[in-house]
This record gives sequence, C-alpha cells and structure tokens, in this order.
Amino acid sequence: MRSVAVIGIGKTAFGAFPDRDIRSLAVEAISNALKDASVEASAAEAFYLGNFAGPSFVGQNHLAPYIGTAAGFHGIPCTRFEDACASSGSAFFHAWQSVAFGMYDIVVAAGVEKMTSQSTPRVTEILAGAGDMSGEGLAGATFPALFAMIARRHMHEYGTTREQMAAVAVKNHANGAKNPLAHMRKTITLEQALAGKPVAEPLTVYDCSLISDGAAAVVLVPLGQAARYTSRFAAVRAVAQTSDYVALDQKASITVFPSVKAAGHKAYELAAISPGEIDLAELHDCFTIAEILASEDLCFTTKGNGGPLAAEGATSIGGRIPINTSGGLKSKGHPVGATGVGQICDVVMQLRGDAGERQVEKHRIGLAQNLGGSGATCVVTILEAA
Amino acid sequence: MRSVAVIGIGKTAFGAFPDRDIRSLAVEAISNALKDASVEASAAEAFYLGNFAGPSFVGQNHLAPYIGTAAGFHGIPCTRFEDACASSGSAFFHAWQSVAFGMYDIVVAAGVEKMTSQSTPRVTEILAGAGDMSGEGLAGATFPALFAMIARRHMHEYGTTREQMAAVAVKNHANGAKNPLAHMRKTITLEQALAGKPVAEPLTVYDCSLISDGAAAVVLVPLGQAARYTSRFAAVRAVAQTSDYVALDQKASITVFPSVKAAGHKAYELAAISPGEIDLAELHDCFTIAEILASEDLCFTTKGNGGPLAAEGATSIGGRIPINTSGGLKSKGHPVGATGVGQICDVVMQLRGDAGERQVEKHRIGLAQNLGGSGATCVVTILEAA
Repeated sequence: MRSVAVIGIGKTAFGAFPDRDIRSLAVEAISNALKDASVEASAAEAFYLGNFAGPSFVGQNHLAPYIGTAAGFHGIPCTRFEDACASSGSAFFHAWQSVAFGMYDIVVAAGVEKMTSQSTPRVTEILAGAGDMSGEGLAGATFPALFAMIARRHMHEYGTTREQMAAVAVKNHANGAKNPLAHMRKTITLEQALAGKPVAEPLTVYDCSLISDGAAAVVLVPLGQAARYTSRFAAVRAVAQTSDYVALDQKASITVFPSVKAAGHKAYELAAISPGEIDLAELHDCFTIAEILASEDLCFTTKGNGGPLAAEGATSIGGRIPINTSGGLKSKGHPVGATGVGQICDVVMQLRGDAGERQVEKHRIGLAQNLGGSGATCVVTILEAA
Repeated sequence: MRSVAVIGIGKTAFGAFPDRDIRSLAVEAISNALKDASVEASAAEAFYLGNFAGPSFVGQNHLAPYIGTAAGFHGIPCTRFEDACASSGSAFFHAWQSVAFGMYDIVVAAGVEKMTSQSTPRVTEILAGAGDMSGEGLAGATFPALFAMIARRHMHEYGTTREQMAAVAVKNHANGAKNPLAHMRKTITLEQALAGKPVAEPLTVYDCSLISDGAAAVVLVPLGQAARYTSRFAAVRAVAQTSDYVALDQKASITVFPSVKAAGHKAYELAAISPGEIDLAELHDCFTIAEILASEDLCFTTKGNGGPLAAEGATSIGGRIPINTSGGLKSKGHPVGATGVGQICDVVMQLRGDAGERQVEKHRIGLAQNLGGSGATCVVTILEAA
C-alpha cells in the first residue's frame, strides 16, 4: 500500500445560487482543484463524484459522466457514489483506495449538490430518504426529528444542556463569518441561538445546518509523486469508511454512533496517530448535537462530555482542539453531496496555513468526519501537512 | 495485481412484483450468492451496490447500508454506485478492483431496481434522467426516441433493416422463454415483432426492453483462494469501465459508441483475449439496435454488419457467437440497477454449464457488456470457466 497525497483543492462558495446549475458548480470546483494542482484534466485516470440526490433536486441522474465530460475527462471511469450526506466522503475513500493500492497515479474526487431548485419545497422529504422511509419516514420522523430524539436522550443520559448545544452554533457561526466561501456569514449570540425558532424540540433553527448549493474537489496522487506537482500538498495518513443500521430504532443506543467510533478507530490505527495528536477537525455538524456526539465518539473528550467541551471553548479557534474552523455545516453550509470533500478541502487549507483569520496555530495534523444519515455511514480522514 | 474469481452468484426472478420491496429483493439475491459461495455474510469486507433510481421509484435513498445491514453486513464499507443502466456494472468494476489490487479478500457486489411502484407512471421521465435533461429531456427526447434516432441513422448508413432488428427480438424472446427467471417468457414470431405497436419510429414495443423489478449479486475473492470455497468458480479475466458524453448531440457519430469500443479494447487487452475467442456474450439490449451496435463495437462482426449477424442466426444458441442466451434485457427484463451484475451471473451460469435448455456447447470464455444511458458509461467484463 502506498501513501497518498492531496495535491490540489477546489471549492465553490456554498450558498443559494438560483442561477447556477449543478454541472457548472461541479465543473468550477474541479477546475479550481486541477489549477491548484497544476494538473490538466486529461491527466486524470478516474473520476469519483459524490452526490446525494441530484435526480430528486434537479431531475438529472447519471451525473458522473455528465459532469466529468464537461470537466474535461474523456474515456476514463466516471462514477457517482451515494451514501447520503457521506456521499463525497465515500467518493474520496474509493479515490484514495485506488491510488493507495496502485490502480491509478492521478485521480479526481469531487462532490456536488444543488438543493435550491424547483424541488426545494420537498427538501425535507428528499433528505428523509437518507433515513428509513419504511419506518421513520412513514411515521413522519424527518431528520430534525431524529436528531431531536438523539439530543433529548443525550440530555437525559449526560446532562447535556441547550446552552451547550447553542455554544456549538455560536462557535461555528463565529468561524463561518470569517470564511469568504461560507453560506451564512453572520455571528450569533448565545441568547439568539437559544431564542431561535423551534424546529423539533429541543432543536431550534440555530441547531440545524443549512440548505445549500455548492461543490468541492480534490486531486490525489501517490505521496512519492506529490512534489513533482506542488510543494503545497497534504499527506493522506488514513481514510476509513464504515456502516451501521439506517433506522435509529435498530441501534443499541442513540447517543453513540458505532459507525463513527469504528471509522475513527480504524483511521487512528492506520495512521498510527492518537486522538490527542489531532490539531484540528472538521466534524459533521448537520445538527449541533451531531458535533457533540462526534467529538465524543472520536475521543476528543470522554463520552458525555462533548457539550462541556464546546461550552468551555476547547473546540474554538485557540482552544485545545479547534472544531469546524470553516464554520461547519451550520454556517458554511451543507450542500449534502459536497460536504465530505469540502471538509477535506477545509482541513488542507488549515494544514497549508491558508485559513487567514481562521488559521489555527498548530496545524500539522487534521481530521475530517463525514456522516451519512443518522449514523448509517461514516468516513473519517486524517491528513498531515507536507 | 491479482487475478479475481466469482465464487458465488445469486439472482431473484426478474418481473413485476408489486408485493415485494426493494430491500427484500436485494437481500434475496445476496443471500443466494452467499449460499452459492458457501460464505457467511460476516466474512464480507465491503459491499458494492448498484442502483439507478431507488429514490425516484420508491423514495428510499442511502440504499447501501439500508440493504447491507439487512443482508448481514456490519461495520464494513457499504456504498451505492450509480452510472445509469450501468450502475451495477460499475459496482462490479470497483469490487473487482478492490480485490485485484489487494485491498480486500472477499467482497459482495450486487444490483437492484424496483421499477413497479407508485412512481411507475413516471418511469419514462425517471429513465430520461440518464440522458441530458437540460437538452434531450427538455426537448422531450426520452430513451426510445434517442435509440430510434440511432436506429434510423444505422439503417441509413449501413442498410440495416427493421427485419434485422426484429430478428434480435425474436432470438431474445426464444431464449428468455427457456429461462425460469425471465420476466417475459414467451416466444414471438418475426411477423409479430414487425407488427408490434409503434413506440418511436422505427422501434416497436418489441424493440424495447422491459420495466422490471429484480436483483442480482456475486461474491468475489482472489482467484488463488477460490478453490477453498468452491470448485464452481469463474475467473474474472478483465473488467473495464469507460465514459463518454451523455448527450447524443455531443458525439461525433451516433452509430458507434466510443465508450463501448474503448471498454472492449481495454478488456480484450487486459485479458489477452481476442473477440474471436469469446464463446458467448450478454450484451446490453435495452433496444434491439443497441445489441446490434454492441456486437459491432465489440468486434464480433465488422461495423455495419450487426443486423445481418443476428438475422443469419450467428448470435443464436448454436450460432458462432451466441448473444443474450438469458433472453437479454428484452425478454429476461431490465431492472436497471440489477442488469450489470445480472449479466455476469448469466455468463457464469453458462461457464459452469448450468444453463439448462439454453446451454451453449462451447462455454469456456464469456463476455458481459453493460451500457449506461445512450453510451455515456460502459462496463465490459470477460470471464473464464474454472
């Protein structure tokens, strides 16, 4: 197995772009990544695209060659990967695997979602398709409802408070306000977060991530070849993808996601890195409680202590383990299929020291965690600065 | 790179099963494949699922862990692959790659589609999503219309006749009538085929494949380990996946698919096998003209001679190169996401000598060709008897 490097990153802004189509967003991100890597599109040997629900949002399926040919890829395998909100995390996992195990020497992984469309009024229903429609969906339990149950149970078991969840939102908005590519660039106060419109008790609108359009892309090569292209690469120390039951009622506990624990464990083991060595992380805060759970399941703190960890400032820029310096899904935005590769771009920016106002001081090793549904898929990636 | 073997195959019947849900179909096929391989579900290290449009047909997305956990896979990567009608061909390609390049020692690839649902009235629109919705779709050019243009042009350029296309339908119905798992088990005459209800000139209903439910699955291990499990394995000599433009108007010619030519060329080269050495093939006859094109692009005959090849009986059981002994998409059925892996199961049955009344005499080497859209994706697999 070879070590792999990210030699180029590219993102669009995340936001609501009614005039953009899904293909132009993806092509923009891919072009940016190729340019960043100083690589021509014709050099790519395979294209890995993450997309959750293009057919439902914009009526276009078969997106991999549809986008790939427009990006300049001809004749190569162009494949769409779907694992709910972890779709492009999964695309990245398979892209990494193909280089690590010697199938290809240069590949592109990308993710895209166009959520503002004529189907936006159906967005909650479309997103619910990432859960169990024969049970949860039939009962009307959409994702805010599922994560509200998780939050309520976490409050019951560990004494987590609404203030602690709101602290996650306040932090992520503060970070996103400084990110030029973020969807919602505004700071909020704890009082505002607590007084947000209720969505599903105990979650308010400030506990929920955004409905966004956007795309992200990366270029991968063997680590040993990275210096040929750029000095600004990042080493992929590990990627792990895991799975679990889709329906919450099939899980032994709803306050711990076995898929996240297992992906973290595998990634730490493969990278031979301990959680304490991680300098910064992008965690999948589809809801504030999800960031709290992930910070526990990835061992940045003990189980049940994720709320205090955020409230005490340990996860802020300048804290012990800065989380979601990009603004996270909460403020940066959550174009579902773009999120996984977008997180990797955000981590690489930090590792390169390119995060501007949001730059963390120690930035040698970063982690990205991409979650699908209510924990049925998880992809954890560990990256190291060149 | 290691050689890989298919050690287990499993299919459901293809047909219209209003009482079955998508998960139960997929689980049935996977269970059959695992049983055929004498392998427990817990032994699988990764799960590769092909599905085209589950979210559109049945409202369920995130299908890989949804189906995978029900099939007994826990904690492993469970990923859905989408490449239109080549979705499970692509899943198989990536599954093969992961074993060939040493990532895993045992994996399961499957495909499923549930097309008879409350969304069936929208089936033509849903299928159109595999084409370019911003152009072809907007103009009302659904797949029968696209392949009708291809047929008309092939008739113009090469003198192909409606009788020759009808001969493909007659042959595939004759084969499918003998296949216990086929959707439409009835023979038709040339006169019936020619007198079929028009769908899109010059295609009649007998030139078009079926709207089916169904699933198929295979188990893959390194060839060197296959004998530990079974003596009834087949060697995967090559798999190649390629891409091309989605929209017909972007192609230089519409009577040749560069993706098919390239996938065939790559597969023949990797296998070090010439087209003349193929004993039987399952080709993607979504329309009769598609089988004719594929028989040319894969070099079973010269360009323009695919019509006569079928009409002269060379592609019938007992002919020089039997094509679609399963009945093909035309008679066996075309549950879109299941078709690619289903073809591989059908080829392996022939290689094992298990095809009953449809068994061909020479059955050492078989080929499967899975097409996505109007040629934007192609996966070609070459298999050899143990």
